[in-house]
Amino acid sequence: MRAAILAAGSGSRFRRHFDGPKPLFPLLGVPLIVRNILGLREAGVHEFVVVTGCYDRELRDYLGDGSQWGVSIRYVHNSRWQLGNGTSAHTFQEVYRPEEKFVLLMADHLYEPEVFQDVIAEAEQLDEGDVLLAADRRVNDAYRLEERTKIVADGDVARQLGKELGQFDAVDCGLLLCTGALLEALSQAIDQGRYTLTDGVNILTREGRVKLLFVDRNWVDVDDLESCRRGENILLKSLIPEKDGFVSKHLNRKISLRITRWLAPTRVTPNQISFFSFLICLFSALCFGLGHPFAGGILAQLGCILDGVDGEIARLNYKKSSYGALFDSILDRYADYFMIIGMGYWWFQHSDYPGFALIVSMLALSGQPMSMLIKEKYKSSTGQTFIPERDDGIFRYVPANRDGRLFLIMLGGIFHLIPATLIILAIISHGQTIVRLVSLRRKM
Amino acid sequence: MRAAILAAGSGSRFRRHFDGPKPLFPLLGVPLIVRNILGLREAGVHEFVVVTGCYDRELRDYLGDGSQWGVSIRYVHNSRWQLGNGTSAHTFQEVYRPEEKFVLLMADHLYEPEVFQDVIAEAEQLDEGDVLLAADRRVNDAYRLEERTKIVADGDVARQLGKELGQFDAVDCGLLLCTGALLEALSQAIDQGRYTLTDGVNILTREGRVKLLFVDRNWVDVDDLESCRRGENILLKSLIPEKDGFVSKHLNRKISLRITRWLAPTRVTPNQISFFSFLICLFSALCFGLGHPFAGGILAQLGCILDGVDGEIARLNYKKSSYGALFDSILDRYADYFMIIGMGYWWFQHSDYPGFALIVSMLALSGQPMSMLIKEKYKSSTGQTFIPERDDGIFRYVPANRDGRLFLIMLGGIFHLIPATLIILAIISHGQTIVRLVSLRRKM
Repeated sequence: MRAAILAAGSGSRFRRHFDGPKPLFPLLGVPLIVRNILGLREAGVHEFVVVTGCYDRELRDYLGDGSQWGVSIRYVHNSRWQLGNGTSAHTFQEVYRPEEKFVLLMADHLYEPEVFQDVIAEAEQLDEGDVLLAADRRVNDAYRLEERTKIVADGDVARQLGKELGQFDAVDCGLLLCTGALLEALSQAIDQGRYTLTDGVNILTREGRVKLLFVDRNWVDVDDLESCRRGENILLKSLIPEKDGFVSKHLNRKISLRITRWLAPTRVTPNQISFFSFLICLFSALCFGLGHPFAGGILAQLGCILDGVDGEIARLNYKKSSYGALFDSILDRYADYFMIIGMGYWWFQHSDYPGFALIVSMLALSGQPMSMLIKEKYKSSTGQTFIPERDDGIFRYVPANRDGRLFLIMLGGIFHLIPATLIILAIISHGQTIVRLVSLRRKM
Repeated sequence: MRAAILAAGSGSRFRRHFDGPKPLFPLLGVPLIVRNILGLREAGVHEFVVVTGCYDRELRDYLGDGSQWGVSIRYVHNSRWQLGNGTSAHTFQEVYRPEEKFVLLMADHLYEPEVFQDVIAEAEQLDEGDVLLAADRRVNDAYRLEERTKIVADGDVARQLGKELGQFDAVDCGLLLCTGALLEALSQAIDQGRYTLTDGVNILTREGRVKLLFVDRNWVDVDDLESCRRGENILLKSLIPEKDGFVSKHLNRKISLRITRWLAPTRVTPNQISFFSFLICLFSALCFGLGHPFAGGILAQLGCILDGVDGEIARLNYKKSSYGALFDSILDRYADYFMIIGMGYWWFQHSDYPGFALIVSMLALSGQPMSMLIKEKYKSSTGQTFIPERDDGIFRYVPANRDGRLFLIMLGGIFHLIPATLIILAIISHGQTIVRLVSLRRKM
């Protein structure tokens, strides 16, 4: 499937914030139009047609043939762009392939990336001659509702679109799955002197041919600083993975997302952050080993927070790589190891029962990778992701995953309770393993 | 796709070894016909038609409706079975579905299971009206060549089949992928008073309609004690996984396969063996900790050898389960942990530098799960299996995988070199991790 991206407008209102075509405005480090291209690429779209107008040269120069993102981009230029965005959408006619279904979207809208999957999943069911319009029923949450195109709906069929409707059921997200019928309707509208995309769509609504897909993902039409901010928040919020543990979800992410907001526009790579997080944990280990548990504890927690940032930036800016995931998890294991060795060594030197300290430290040490080992083995055996919040039953409240373990290490450092921390870590990490072995026996 | 299994004969020659229908003769714990059903099930066949003759009742009673193996089995009875196996194959006509392609095989032949995948993979290319016959060009390796059906071939087309041919290119493996054409040819042959399957196939060879698939898997027609033995060896040899390390391949498997040959017919489950192997390693750890390194070393190696048996029996008797794989690998990690803790504790108690012993032991301990961690993470990220022999470059000669590590532990125990063993284990396990992190960066 191909996608047509409308990038013809002049974005005059946005000009005071950004000197250039609005689709090239970088939000958290990635231009708006590139975000849409990358989001659609994840959803399986690899061919793009960018409709240019005001900024033809600039867009071609920046985006090129798309090969740097592993997609192909061609351009059509709409010389009548000033008349209205219906003429831009209609320009796609020049490259339209008979019976093709295509995605049509606004270059300067920002979407939570999963929305593209949702829309494209409907392609098979869409009848020839119909159009599917992404619509948002949460009208009270819409940003600058007065400027949104509203929709009167009858079930999941649109009856009328317009900016000035008094009563309406949803707002238009600026994202459509189209058949050639839209291009015909746009022709008709343009012949009648009506030049907006809404005019074209309204010709089809009269025949009941505009189906609605109600989305519950977030999106925003980027048009001023406030909407940029809103867009950033939408993206950042979408980065919290389902598999997050309790401490991570309620504490670490609140901080790591701020760091991500700050680092995303820079050239720092996820692997560099992974390594930096590892170094911090190494310092934590040294602090523990040399008898500065307070600093050790604080650094441990800091390392854990930073450990979230690499993945966030990788997901946010489409820099995910399987090597990155492997590199990060192996470094995490070493970070855990060194902290436990630091704590164990200190305890051993100050204990009246060094043999006991040795055994407990070794048990705590060996417990560190068990959570990951079971999760990875589960995934490679069953193809499914092990999600502690869902799969650990009552044990999900025990801080035995990494976020929880490092939180315990922080507490142990702050309150100078090294032996107790090691004993607890040994018990909960191996306890979790045994519980998982027993519970998975039933489930797998 | 369905499979028709010919199980009509009386197996008179085999009667002196086994009192019952030959297809029910258990080879390494599983009756011949059930091995074929399970092998085909792995290749995607779930519907079976068993052609009975001499032992109709016994086969139905034993096999039932197939639900115990997750397949469906129906039966057709060939009252003329004594005339020849062509009449049995022809009986499939009773349940034949127009235009169906089906697998036809002998109940008492034993195949290396992968051969079924190879044959079924050809189904799409097989033209209506043709037959595909599995053939083996290694005629000099064929068991009792004088009794085999020989094939004169012209490229991959059979020209003639027969037992008494003077010159021939291959032997018939008794496994066919058929279209309705075979049933028509059999009708014709039977009308002419020729009753063997070969007679039917020879009608098609004249028209060039018998294609050959040359197999390089092993197989045998089980007909006497020597062929049973040969069959057992074929199965056991097929159990050695590609990912085996050096010590495992050249030492452990030679012993573990003997144990598997002995245990396979019993009711012992793979998980019980995993647990027993774990217990032996636990005793090894105790021996090390209490100062009996010789016994510890021997037990470690014994545990490692037994650790191969669980997987072998699971694969051999189609008892593989994703839980079994998870259970086994987690127990292995604990076995490794306990042995290192035992060795470390002993060293610590007898060392003049207990702090050094502690650090080295902890490094050795933390190195144990790293090999598995990288392999599992690699698999879950890329979907591919990490094969040390292929992917570890020059490092594949370093005994850093489990078979190698436990071999070192055995040597360390026998020669009473605990500190050296722990130092070496620490170096090679973390060394391997670093080498893998560097080399995978290029590859992934």
